Amino acid sequence: MTQKIGIGLLGLGTVGTGVANILNSPEGRHPLVASINIVRIAVRDLQRPRLVNIDQSIITNDPYEVVKDPNVEVVVEAMGGLEPARSLIMLAIASGKSIVTANKAVVARYGKEIAEAANASGVYVLIEAAVGGGIPIIEPIKQSLGGNRIQKVTGIINGTTNYILTQMTKRGTKYQDVLKEAQELGYAESDPSADVDGHDAADKIAILSGLAFGGAIDRESIPTKGISTLESKDIIYANKLGYEIKLLAIAENLSESATKDSSAYLALRVEPSLIPKEHPLSGVNGVNNAILIEGDPIGQVMFYGPGAGAGPTASAVVADILNVAGIKLMQQRGEKSLDPLLSAFSWRNCFLANPREMPQKNYVRLITADTPGVIGSVGNLFGKNDVSIESIVQLDSNKTGAEIIVITHEVSKGQIIDSLEEIEKLTEVIQIAAHFSCL
Amino acid sequence: MTQKIGIGLLGLGTVGTGVANILNSPEGRHPLVASINIVRIAVRDLQRPRLVNIDQSIITNDPYEVVKDPNVEVVVEAMGGLEPARSLIMLAIASGKSIVTANKAVVARYGKEIAEAANASGVYVLIEAAVGGGIPIIEPIKQSLGGNRIQKVTGIINGTTNYILTQMTKRGTKYQDVLKEAQELGYAESDPSADVDGHDAADKIAILSGLAFGGAIDRESIPTKGISTLESKDIIYANKLGYEIKLLAIAENLSESATKDSSAYLALRVEPSLIPKEHPLSGVNGVNNAILIEGDPIGQVMFYGPGAGAGPTASAVVADILNVAGIKLMQQRGEKSLDPLLSAFSWRNCFLANPREMPQKNYVRLITADTPGVIGSVGNLFGKNDVSIESIVQLDSNKTGAEIIVITHEVSKGQIIDSLEEIEKLTEVIQIAAHFSCL
Repeated sequence: MTQKIGIGLLGLGTVGTGVANILNSPEGRHPLVASINIVRIAVRDLQRPRLVNIDQSIITNDPYEVVKDPNVEVVVEAMGGLEPARSLIMLAIASGKSIVTANKAVVARYGKEIAEAANASGVYVLIEAAVGGGIPIIEPIKQSLGGNRIQKVTGIINGTTNYILTQMTKRGTKYQDVLKEAQELGYAESDPSADVDGHDAADKIAILSGLAFGGAIDRESIPTKGISTLESKDIIYANKLGYEIKLLAIAENLSESATKDSSAYLALRVEPSLIPKEHPLSGVNGVNNAILIEGDPIGQVMFYGPGAGAGPTASAVVADILNVAGIKLMQQRGEKSLDPLLSAFSWRNCFLANPREMPQKNYVRLITADTPGVIGSVGNLFGKNDVSIESIVQLDSNKTGAEIIVITHEVSKGQIIDSLEEIEKLTEVIQIAAHFSCL
Repeated sequence: MTQKIGIGLLGLGTVGTGVANILNSPEGRHPLVASINIVRIAVRDLQRPRLVNIDQSIITNDPYEVVKDPNVEVVVEAMGGLEPARSLIMLAIASGKSIVTANKAVVARYGKEIAEAANASGVYVLIEAAVGGGIPIIEPIKQSLGGNRIQKVTGIINGTTNYILTQMTKRGTKYQDVLKEAQELGYAESDPSADVDGHDAADKIAILSGLAFGGAIDRESIPTKGISTLESKDIIYANKLGYEIKLLAIAENLSESATKDSSAYLALRVEPSLIPKEHPLSGVNGVNNAILIEGDPIGQVMFYGPGAGAGPTASAVVADILNVAGIKLMQQRGEKSLDPLLSAFSWRNCFLANPREMPQKNYVRLITADTPGVIGSVGNLFGKNDVSIESIVQLDSNKTGAEIIVITHEVSKGQIIDSLEEIEKLTEVIQIAAHFSCL
């Protein structure tokens, strides 16, 4: 891997900085990361101090200069907003350069035009970071679920509203109060409308359903309802009846049979919805996102993770950069060369640790004599071996003795094994009845 | 897409039949599915009746004939077992043919040898179906998480044991009784050892950690403990203390710093473990699988879905076939052609349904006068509009009136809107205070 792929980065805000941080420290990541080089960066304000170590000479305040730079092979658009992002993407395509973008607003509105231009020009436009933050979801839909007839996509795909609803549920706080808190914590914008009114989720479900169902979606026709009128009372009642309330983006194929007509007839909407507590989406809390996909023959699969944030979003952007880089390297190397991401190869030695050195929390069940000093003796022996205890409770006692459950903090497996050997010898201890690790 | 990619299928059991069923009915799936053609199939018993429509002339009972067939470009190994599967895979590689396999036992034991031969020969060996059934997990690790330093992989990756533990937890039934049931239902083998003693999970975590940490794993050195000695009592106690018990496969990078030394020092093990109830893996029940990956900078991502079964496993096998086919087609078409999976293009028209025609369950909160007949009147009006009611309860009543919560079965949005318009006019109804959809 001697050739380096030149990246032009548009924007050095949260996402751009996260991407630069990954590419600047390739150690311990996929070796392909080391083949990627940021050669030009456009920023709005040249004077602003940066949280990442960048050679000042590659920075400009003219994004067009970055796109046009002959050393830039792949353009990473991390500016956001409709313009000039859209024009820069179209210019990059026209210049024969592949694009990686996190810009859901542009892709949801101009995805068809962009995809057609990209296909005609023979370049990729990859958008993993546009939906679900760091969660791999675009690529699995495009590459892993292609054998399925997708029936339904259901997503919790806006972190701000999910944070607000989670707080309203856990603490019984009113919408307005939680929104204010979320704004102070940086989880909501000062103008929160794009999030709380559901527009951001609508952009994202337009993108997901376009890929899942194979055709362009009319973004402006998606019925969209946000969470701003939701009362705490409805959350309380829903909980009583066995439901959670989440802002869902849903796309469902209503076509009678996929075989009759190749068109898809889709029910799309964004709205707060009740979810039964046993449903996999009901446990998705805080700023996390999750996308549930139902298809034939796969059944239900769910993708869960951080829906926003510099690190997760940068992870998704870099995934796309690696995909483009892998294919470029394969093509440069010619016949019989493989995509370095799809092929498997070792890039470091993996050694297995001695089991005694593995760190773990522990659950231990002891059967003991029912005498007053036993918890003290057991506690002392753990202490002697430096095993710190989270809880120790007696859960059952009867004629044959008592049962004591110990949960430890994280210690090495060796420490716990040594402790248990000594504890077993205590006269008050009849038996170590069970020992498991704990997450 | 006029060229067809020729597939040779080894085995026509559950997985092979599932694959043939997908490839035989491409309508409504990714258009690349239609470019794939099964040209030769090896079965053990030529006389056995088949659940799939196959031209008898392409069936043989000699798997070597399939691998050697010049029309076979990609070999799909769905036989299972170590031999002759391993030898057939090596022969296919030597013949310059890419392989798709679900064979976790072979890959966990001979993965290094297979990968080296494949890279030397310029072919792919893709294994999405080897871990997690239908869940896209191999490809996300290889392609989507490459920018991360993976710190830990934690998986519920054996459906049989997870089914048994779920039943033990829900019903307080003993291990031996649930195992017998699982055997009767076909969820456990008559010799259940590979599953209940953890060997299957150990195969799978060896594969996952090899990919996540970038080096071959010594499969035979993974400490492995199954669930057969687990007592119901420990499940009950764990639940009381706020935990579930699951069979976990864990791989953790213990290296102090990824930058100091390129080697990885890994704690690997398979064992029953307590999981706090608020942890994302704790809600994974029945035959479902889930894999939680922790990395820098992504944080935590989880992949959840059906861990076994004909349909899900076939979905994963076809995903791999599509990946190989996409690259083959791209290479055949030459310069400026794109991988049809990574590029985005429309392959059918998507129409958005009229919101009135969208089917949904509903939650309705009414504020009404506190009179005896009100539930009857409301129920009658819903009935008149063919809206079937799942539950109707009065949750609060005070001086200003009563609050009634109605949960309907699934009806069209139009039906519910029409009903609510009429209900609002009832003299007993003061206000329709809330209306949400339900999953």
